[in-house]
Amino acid sequence: MRPEALRELLARVAAGSLSPDAALAALADLPYADLGIAKLDLHRELRSGLPEAVFGEGKRDDDLLAIAQKQLAASGRLLVTRLAPERAAALAARLPGATYDGRARVLTCGPPHEESGARAAVVAAGTSDLGVAEEAAVCLSWFGHTVARRFDVGIAGLHRLLDAVPDLRLAGVIVAVAGMDGALPTLVAGLVAAPVVAVPTSVGYGTGFRGLAALLTMLNACAPGLGVVNIDNGYGAAVLAHRILRTQGRLKAP
Amino acid sequence: MRPEALRELLARVAAGSLSPDAALAALADLPYADLGIAKLDLHRELRSGLPEAVFGEGKRDDDLLAIAQKQLAASGRLLVTRLAPERAAALAARLPGATYDGRARVLTCGPPHEESGARAAVVAAGTSDLGVAEEAAVCLSWFGHTVARRFDVGIAGLHRLLDAVPDLRLAGVIVAVAGMDGALPTLVAGLVAAPVVAVPTSVGYGTGFRGLAALLTMLNACAPGLGVVNIDNGYGAAVLAHRILRTQGRLKAP
Amino acid sequence: MRPEALRELLARVAAGSLSPDAALAALADLPYADLGIAKLDLHRELRSGLPEAVFGEGKRDDDLLAIAQKQLAASGRLLVTRLAPERAAALAARLPGATYDGRARVLTCGPPHEESGARAAVVAAGTSDLGVAEEAAVCLSWFGHTVARRFDVGIAGLHRLLDAVPDLRLAGVIVAVAGMDGALPTLVAGLVAAPVVAVPTSVGYGTGFRGLAALLTMLNACAPGLGVVNIDNGYGAAVLAHRILRTQGRLKAP
Amino acid sequence: MRPEALRELLARVAAGSLSPDAALAALADLPYADLGIAKLDLHRELRSGLPEAVFGEGKRDDDLLAIAQKQLAASGRLLVTRLAPERAAALAARLPGATYDGRARVLTCGPPHEESGARAAVVAAGTSDLGVAEEAAVCLSWFGHTVARRFDVGIAGLHRLLDAVPDLRLAGVIVAVAGMDGALPTLVAGLVAAPVVAVPTSVGYGTGFRGLAALLTMLNACAPGLGVVNIDNGYGAAVLAHRILRTQGRLKAP
Amino acid sequence: MRPEALRELLARVAAGSLSPDAALAALADLPYADLGIAKLDLHRELRSGLPEAVFGEGKRDDDLLAIAQKQLAASGRLLVTRLAPERAAALAARLPGATYDGRARVLTCGPPHEESGARAAVVAAGTSDLGVAEEAAVCLSWFGHTVARRFDVGIAGLHRLLDAVPDLRLAGVIVAVAGMDGALPTLVAGLVAAPVVAVPTSVGYGTGFRGLAALLTMLNACAPGLGVVNIDNGYGAAVLAHRILRTQGRLKAP
Amino acid sequence: MRPEALRELLARVAAGSLSPDAALAALADLPYADLGIAKLDLHRELRSGLPEAVFGEGKRDDDLLAIAQKQLAASGRLLVTRLAPERAAALAARLPGATYDGRARVLTCGPPHEESGARAAVVAAGTSDLGVAEEAAVCLSWFGHTVARRFDVGIAGLHRLLDAVPDLRLAGVIVAVAGMDGALPTLVAGLVAAPVVAVPTSVGYGTGFRGLAALLTMLNACAPGLGVVNIDNGYGAAVLAHRILRTQGRLKAP
Amino acid sequence: MRPEALRELLARVAAGSLSPDAALAALADLPYADLGIAKLDLHRELRSGLPEAVFGEGKRDDDLLAIAQKQLAASGRLLVTRLAPERAAALAARLPGATYDGRARVLTCGPPHEESGARAAVVAAGTSDLGVAEEAAVCLSWFGHTVARRFDVGIAGLHRLLDAVPDLRLAGVIVAVAGMDGALPTLVAGLVAAPVVAVPTSVGYGTGFRGLAALLTMLNACAPGLGVVNIDNGYGAAVLAHRILRTQGRLKAP
Amino acid sequence: MRPEALRELLARVAAGSLSPDAALAALADLPYADLGIAKLDLHRELRSGLPEAVFGEGKRDDDLLAIAQKQLAASGRLLVTRLAPERAAALAARLPGATYDGRARVLTCGPPHEESGARAAVVAAGTSDLGVAEEAAVCLSWFGHTVARRFDVGIAGLHRLLDAVPDLRLAGVIVAVAGMDGALPTLVAGLVAAPVVAVPTSVGYGTGFRGLAALLTMLNACAPGLGVVNIDNGYGAAVLAHRILRTQGRLKAP
Repeated sequence: MRPEALRELLARVAAGSLSPDAALAALADLPYADLGIAKLDLHRELRSGLPEAVFGEGKRDDDLLAIAQKQLAASGRLLVTRLAPERAAALAARLPGATYDGRARVLTCGPPHEESGARAAVVAAGTSDLGVAEEAAVCLSWFGHTVARRFDVGIAGLHRLLDAVPDLRLAGVIVAVAGMDGALPTLVAGLVAAPVVAVPTSVGYGTGFRGLAALLTMLNACAPGLGVVNIDNGYGAAVLAHRILRTQGRLKAP
Repeated sequence: MRPEALRELLARVAAGSLSPDAALAALADLPYADLGIAKLDLHRELRSGLPEAVFGEGKRDDDLLAIAQKQLAASGRLLVTRLAPERAAALAARLPGATYDGRARVLTCGPPHEESGARAAVVAAGTSDLGVAEEAAVCLSWFGHTVARRFDVGIAGLHRLLDAVPDLRLAGVIVAVAGMDGALPTLVAGLVAAPVVAVPTSVGYGTGFRGLAALLTMLNACAPGLGVVNIDNGYGAAVLAHRILRTQGRLKAP
Repeated sequence: MRPEALRELLARVAAGSLSPDAALAALADLPYADLGIAKLDLHRELRSGLPEAVFGEGKRDDDLLAIAQKQLAASGRLLVTRLAPERAAALAARLPGATYDGRARVLTCGPPHEESGARAAVVAAGTSDLGVAEEAAVCLSWFGHTVARRFDVGIAGLHRLLDAVPDLRLAGVIVAVAGMDGALPTLVAGLVAAPVVAVPTSVGYGTGFRGLAALLTMLNACAPGLGVVNIDNGYGAAVLAHRILRTQGRLKAP
Repeated sequence: MRPEALRELLARVAAGSLSPDAALAALADLPYADLGIAKLDLHRELRSGLPEAVFGEGKRDDDLLAIAQKQLAASGRLLVTRLAPERAAALAARLPGATYDGRARVLTCGPPHEESGARAAVVAAGTSDLGVAEEAAVCLSWFGHTVARRFDVGIAGLHRLLDAVPDLRLAGVIVAVAGMDGALPTLVAGLVAAPVVAVPTSVGYGTGFRGLAALLTMLNACAPGLGVVNIDNGYGAAVLAHRILRTQGRLKAP
Repeated sequence: MRPEALRELLARVAAGSLSPDAALAALADLPYADLGIAKLDLHRELRSGLPEAVFGEGKRDDDLLAIAQKQLAASGRLLVTRLAPERAAALAARLPGATYDGRARVLTCGPPHEESGARAAVVAAGTSDLGVAEEAAVCLSWFGHTVARRFDVGIAGLHRLLDAVPDLRLAGVIVAVAGMDGALPTLVAGLVAAPVVAVPTSVGYGTGFRGLAALLTMLNACAPGLGVVNIDNGYGAAVLAHRILRTQGRLKAP
Repeated sequence: MRPEALRELLARVAAGSLSPDAALAALADLPYADLGIAKLDLHRELRSGLPEAVFGEGKRDDDLLAIAQKQLAASGRLLVTRLAPERAAALAARLPGATYDGRARVLTCGPPHEESGARAAVVAAGTSDLGVAEEAAVCLSWFGHTVARRFDVGIAGLHRLLDAVPDLRLAGVIVAVAGMDGALPTLVAGLVAAPVVAVPTSVGYGTGFRGLAALLTMLNACAPGLGVVNIDNGYGAAVLAHRILRTQGRLKAP
Repeated sequence: MRPEALRELLARVAAGSLSPDAALAALADLPYADLGIAKLDLHRELRSGLPEAVFGEGKRDDDLLAIAQKQLAASGRLLVTRLAPERAAALAARLPGATYDGRARVLTCGPPHEESGARAAVVAAGTSDLGVAEEAAVCLSWFGHTVARRFDVGIAGLHRLLDAVPDLRLAGVIVAVAGMDGALPTLVAGLVAAPVVAVPTSVGYGTGFRGLAALLTMLNACAPGLGVVNIDNGYGAAVLAHRILRTQGRLKAP
Repeated sequence: MRPEALRELLARVAAGSLSPDAALAALADLPYADLGIAKLDLHRELRSGLPEAVFGEGKRDDDLLAIAQKQLAASGRLLVTRLAPERAAALAARLPGATYDGRARVLTCGPPHEESGARAAVVAAGTSDLGVAEEAAVCLSWFGHTVARRFDVGIAGLHRLLDAVPDLRLAGVIVAVAGMDGALPTLVAGLVAAPVVAVPTSVGYGTGFRGLAALLTMLNACAPGLGVVNIDNGYGAAVLAHRILRTQGRLKAP
């Protein structure tokens, strides 16, 4: 409840136009947190420009459709992540205008967010990391940012990464995706000044432990300046990158 | 080697004031790969304004002193992290003008970086997390940023965090430090729009597994928008936050 | 039963001052092994009102049917948990009157337990947690309790949980179900006074490690007052909640 | 803020004895979220009768003293847990009337909570588990409950536990403490109808992994009806047991 | 090379019917280590009466058939373990006289080992553990021992185990099989004097971690006197039990 | 004892065909709880000849002394394991006739168990494993068995082990102790027919993970016939070996 | 950029035949790292004779084909590893002259590398390890080396390995492949002087943890002289062996 | 038993100067394996030139001295690894001519091995890794090889490593030592053709898990051609490198 609203209510009590009991009811009835926290929530949407995404795994088909439709109706946009190809067609058929990216496993519906003019780069170590990298890239594009893709620049072919460095320096944030030894983000963080969002992938086998090895490499990076997200979490990387890009310039305002 | 310096060198060769051999020596003195890569490195310093920090653990006393002195001589500044109190006095005695913060376990020497005008917030869940939180805060101050501290705002006392929200919204980046269940950064990421740098601490016992539980909580945060650093890595959080703050506005330039 | 007491009892039978039947009753009432332990078991059933549930996984179809029929015959009721939908139809066809809840994966047969008048609440963080939450809720209803469901109240949408708080305060026990970061039970325990039964779910991916991250969060909860059960163990949560509700009032008896 | 206090404040505004601005100030003085959430917090204290306990580890001596004094001043009572004997004397010397239990490593100050009339039992598997068991027992006594202790009743000496069963059946809740194989709580849950709070301890060696083996045993208990807390967390077990005992009877109220 | 064969060879050299060089060749032809170690190996077969078993998993169909046939030809007996039902029929069809036990997943061919007169007991905690328990029981029977089966005697129904104790006391070794909390072998070891072979099974879910919880329970058993084998390793348990039974009496020989 | 049997017995007492004393004897011989379980326990002592050992770690000095004295008084013998040298002198001073073995960290008091005539072998891989190996050997000697020690026969010096094989074949059971790669027990099990008790030790570093690597090696032994005990658990190995030796011959009795 | 090239460029500037700006452009235009590092990369190919292999898992069919064709066109040879049989036929059909080894899961195309005259040995513990062993052997043959295979020489049948020792001594490097307890490489390293490349396999079950047990055994080998590669990584073992064989003799050059 | 000795024995049997029974006794009496395997062992020493090293940890002082003296007497040389400085002085005082390297924690006694003419390189990522790196370097020098040290060339300062590449190319083997993210060996393997021995160190904190993160990085290296040893195992790396260097050229012999 905003202070002005509260002041007005109290004034009405003082003026006798509202009884103490009615005021009490109004205050008690307004689930205090509800009022306040829901407002916070609206703030969050207004400021970040991001309605909640729908996680496409582990939901029953009917639940997923209902949630997607509700989300689309509420915000005019829909972003479904980790949506398996075999489920995508059926869902898209029920959502007019939906677009599905099979490599990124991302479904979007409605108009993309307006262009921000900001620039992100997404780098990936190997071909097998492309799914996760594209999830990040597709989401960042959907959020309105320009995305430079530089894939297959893993540490075993160092020159390919070094070639990409000038391009990476133009980006306000770099999403670095790698499985197996997960060394790429560290290397990137040592070569550029932008913040690096590190995404381990489950690519690999044996002691890769489905991404754990890559994750630990990133958390123990000798070069500081990177933040790590969950294994295979391209979407989470995109949201963090979006927040970084979005707040750029905000604090410079008078 | 900066472009201007190279241009000047070449001009002197063209003008005859520098022989090709002398120029070669100057260039050759920078070993081949070194030429390029060293340049990168200077770029890195110029752009991020951060000379390398010295990690105070696991080094012998004589090694630590030698490295600290060399770093100080080279860049005019020195930042030593994770320096145990019992070793700090002896080191500081050999480094005129050094300052040691016992809670943050950070030693600095030389002038702080110039003020950036940017604002960071550091929040911590409990009193036992203060050491790590202060490591981040002291470093961020040293890097030239304004730092708002909000400690003891853990999830068990929700109102204390909610009280802090308006203040947190003024920050361009938020460093959230928590041990035990590590839920604070998730909560913060759900309440503000700024990027959140999540720092798990080794505070706790039993199944806390020296910070592993907190780390996993942060990596699996329901609220996207946070990047995680290593357990107890206050310095790493500060560098990532610095990169985020520093690049703010850069891309808005014409 | 001590030897002396037993000797005395036998002497009374020999002396005719105690009939064999009365002695039998006395003995049946006491010894706690053979007899004794079986009796304990009857005590357990009588007091908790809960015949043993049948775990539906890892059993062959013929074993499962035989056990279910025997259980039903013995106690007049049957509760099968973790029964996959593809096996449920065949089993139900052999058990007249059986009911199967596909979301909870629970099959029941026979009359529900009589109403207790007690009230439990089941809260769940996300839509993907519904299966486990429903397992708990369906079992609690089957045990005779009133169950208030509050789903999709995860930490990322704090106001939704805060809205539910007044309702949660009416419950004698709260079952809180969450996957991913598993922060919901901690939050609930900080907001209400009732005991909280925390259920981690295997919902998530990567470092969620099939529920391990959520489990650790709950075990390290900053807010005390919660007890944790196995990952995805909605049934176990229901039994613990049932015990808590059931003993309410028992100790107040004269 | 309690409803009665709010009603009174509004009545004073209606009666003209308090100006709207003064009322606003009084309300505003409680920061917005604070208003609601602080109220919750007071509710929590009023209902559970438990001011926050102070965790004695990982805090600097001066921090610990300051927090203890503040807590004592605020609530009239103080409970410090996991306080090492070597630190206890110094702290107690600064807190008039403080009592320290060396085995439980618990310091209390101020009057115990009023007697509840409820009864808890604390059982422990071995002599080495006594510290944790006493932490639970001392806290439960401090919370006002009658505590029956039954120690050294581990699974290797089954008859000792069976002997204790009649006594355990009198308790509204049972706290079962065990290290090594951690089988005791399972056994207890199979023998009594009361809810069981299971506490793994770090007692053991090798594959005990500092309590992990015991923890896993408890989480996988064949006998349902127990809730698990963190390794060595006697205090947490006591709070959960307190909540269970405390809510007993509450729901029977008209 | 058996001693008699060596003695005969030397006799032929002494008798001049074999030249030293021919004898040398014969001996040299048996690679030195082979001579000795192959003898050891024969000793092993003679003494333990157990030809090598064939592990049925992870082999290609053609490899499995070839190995089975060779083993059968060499020793006149064949024991294949962990043979999936869907592969068993095809294999059995190529091995005249083969018998397949679907629950134990064991295929045998040729005559069983002669009766030892020794007695083993196999106990299992739950119905889902039957496959592993039967693997042990079927193998022990195949090895010639009398096997008493006592299944479904888990810790949650203590009286069922106690009922079985007199019977268990007749056995020279007890194989105790349990998943989930894995407490059964500990309990058995506390009740009988015979050595206990503990077999954790992968039965359970969540923090059972496919048998790890049960394994740790057994390794940390409060009651000494048990030895643990790999998860689900019914065959290994049977071989250890066989060795224990077989050496009984051997050392009493003059 | 089934109710019918009990009823019949009581009827016979009432009819005078069975005296109360005879009935008492029959019942005392049977009930297996209170009575029953305590009797079981006596059976256990009588049959295994092993009073409970006292675990020397994690107990306070006064607790340890009290338990040791009580145990000594009760059984006339005392065995304390894992007793640190710095605590042993003080304890021994209070226990007349106590003997302490510093390498095995074992204290004994009272007469050793009578000689069994059975023979055990204890083998150890390296010098650093001697402490654990001696714990097993000293306990086995204390239990009355002849113990052959063969230390420093690790897999890297294969001939040393092969040399020992003839000697190992004389033993009814072999305790094989190894840290680091833990391969010794597997090798032994492949060379002899006796049951092998495998004891991993915490000797090693890095990925030895304090004995975990050795433990896993033993659990996954290619050669069947071994049972594994907890890391560093020399005492547990000795009890298992004792049970194996002790039951040898028992089943051959008429 | 080689020194001579740089000297020439500077000479042209001094001679006026190249303007400073043109020289600057040449230097700036030569992506320093690109030029230099790409050259390094060519060095790597020239010296090791190994074009990059294609990892066959986790790539989409179209990606795999494109990469394979490009690789074949670039180097005239193609090596695809971990290619599942069900995908191999389709790929081979598009690559004229391709050969697929179903056991090794390796596809090659183009002429093998020229014969080196060097000799490697590949030993494997069991039949189930053959796939990984053949991956190593097929690759080593493809690299031009003579390969001696000795399979099924696991630690349980010691004499089979000892038989093979003379043969193993002829090899310049030994690749030792083992699952389950993983003891084979240690044993080999204790018997021969050549470097041993140890390959753990995921063969086994339960506590084998998909190769982790074998890996730890190898890393903790008592016998030094072995280097470990990832679980199931036959290809990596082959490349390391190739490097060892290839550099043999190189340093003896004048 | 050498062929000549066997031939002579057989000749004596043929000549009648030795009875078949005496020959049998001689053959049987010579513990075949003993004779043979000990010979192997001598072969091992002769061929690798490396007497066994003494592991300095976990041994009692008197054991360590006895073993060291025996080893020195037997082979004329002594190498003790992982010897803590506080124990080194006392040991050295008893071993005339001993040399102790405090950083490497290595004690040597007797003449170094003769110079091999081969060249190894040891690279280390950071200053804190020097102890392990020096252990490898000191051992390699002791084994007679020329050692080039390149320390502090971690991935965060890429140019320092690239500078060292030409030097690394002269080495027949490269030992690469790194803690934290452990990326250095991968990088090295991508830049040179020699085999790389990767040594993870326990340097780091938090999720470094005492070297586990570095180990996993190395095992999952994208660039093939490296073999990994145990964490902190500088000595093991040196022995593997020695084997590689030593066998270089051996196979080229006629």
